[in-house]
Amino acid sequence: MTHQEIYQLAKEWTYEAGEILRKAVTEQLTVEYKTSAADLVTEKDKEIERFFANKINQVFPTHFLLGEEGVQKDQAYQPEEETVWIVDPIDGTTNFVHTKANFSISVAVYVKGEPVIGIIYDVIKDEMFHVLVGAGLYINDRPAETALAEREIEEALICINHLWLAPNPYINEIKMQKMVGDIRGFRCIGSAALELAYVATGRMDGAIFNGLGPWDYAAGYVMLKEQGLVCTTTAGDVINPYQHSPILAASQALHTKILNDYIELKN
Amino acid sequence: MTHQEIYQLAKEWTYEAGEILRKAVTEQLTVEYKTSAADLVTEKDKEIERFFANKINQVFPTHFLLGEEGVQKDQAYQPEEETVWIVDPIDGTTNFVHTKANFSISVAVYVKGEPVIGIIYDVIKDEMFHVLVGAGLYINDRPAETALAEREIEEALICINHLWLAPNPYINEIKMQKMVGDIRGFRCIGSAALELAYVATGRMDGAIFNGLGPWDYAAGYVMLKEQGLVCTTTAGDVINPYQHSPILAASQALHTKILNDYIELKN
Repeated sequence: MTHQEIYQLAKEWTYEAGEILRKAVTEQLTVEYKTSAADLVTEKDKEIERFFANKINQVFPTHFLLGEEGVQKDQAYQPEEETVWIVDPIDGTTNFVHTKANFSISVAVYVKGEPVIGIIYDVIKDEMFHVLVGAGLYINDRPAETALAEREIEEALICINHLWLAPNPYINEIKMQKMVGDIRGFRCIGSAALELAYVATGRMDGAIFNGLGPWDYAAGYVMLKEQGLVCTTTAGDVINPYQHSPILAASQALHTKILNDYIELKN
Repeated sequence: MTHQEIYQLAKEWTYEAGEILRKAVTEQLTVEYKTSAADLVTEKDKEIERFFANKINQVFPTHFLLGEEGVQKDQAYQPEEETVWIVDPIDGTTNFVHTKANFSISVAVYVKGEPVIGIIYDVIKDEMFHVLVGAGLYINDRPAETALAEREIEEALICINHLWLAPNPYINEIKMQKMVGDIRGFRCIGSAALELAYVATGRMDGAIFNGLGPWDYAAGYVMLKEQGLVCTTTAGDVINPYQHSPILAASQALHTKILNDYIELKN
């Protein structure tokens, strides 16, 4: 099957999964705690990941699935040698349970280490960001703007988690505090995938995260790359798309500015 | 005219104004700077406030208008004695210009000092929060939930501006940093009016602001009151709805907890 055909199916499945989640937000949700009160997981997370696992197993038995919930446990493979679907069934679980908006399904396909497909679906807004590498980034059926504004730091709107402005083990909070005073605005939406899609479409100018799973950033990474934006670790290094990673995404000039002037990693 | 009739007209006008803004976000916007790069004002702010001023002057010549842009300059009155419309033509101007989503129109009517009508319209999402005091809070044509979850602090999702976690003249940032570590999550959407509407509908559990104009919080205040939630200054004092004010909104127990454990005002 061609990449184009995989892309079409991936979008169809994501819409189907979105329909399940749209119905769920009107129902009472059974919630269980995972590692902490801040990290909710619902039965729907697992149901959606299983939905993708089943579809992929049926249609693409040679593909692999890297998902947040790890429903596909019996895989042993070298991701760099294979076609891998990287799926976050619900990115922004707290928003899903609590706010019932601003959560997303994130689906990426990487072929032998190369990003090929990225889909991020804001279920409640019915807004799908999607890209097949080389064919352009789209918002629903409309091509995303390609000539994004190159903004100065004092005009920039940046996504950042409040925790990095408080004492934390990862990043110098004093420099982060300085940054939020210098920029035009900061946002925290609560879905890393959506925040990366917003950077890729120019709604935000940058985003900083200190520890994401591959499923959180894999689709966003494909979009940022297609748009000529920069996405690295917070040390400025190339990302290994199959591993947990801190992430800094922005246009080239802003990326350099943030890296040089505001990021100082601890450890 | 009855309050019910004023309410109907206020909603109609807000939808009309929303239609103007929806069209505008697809056009190139002419932007001028107000006091700083962080405080954008567009020609549309003024256009929308004039739209409301004209409607109010025509239909309610004895009413007054308190608006962010101050287009109605020739008024001298005691607000506590009059019927006053408090209007923010675009709450979340940076979002309007930059993100093209998550901005709102906020319209409140206060009669002789008493909150009567509150409308907050998320234009892009086409989601209108609206209340006539005593008749219940609605989201579009659906009554909002009235039995909101009473959440513990470690389960709470709170709207707070990143600036209050950095050194600032208003509030002890160390205690705010402690708070974001203790709660389930924090959000910064970029429209105070929308954030208050989210608290009033249980999507968020609380919101803290250090300096809002009456237009930012007037409509939200009516909604919070109708829902039995608490909205005071950050010192816990009653709000004067015609003046700039710091704001703390939450359910009763959470409000007390935040006030006692996390807020320490400077000077």
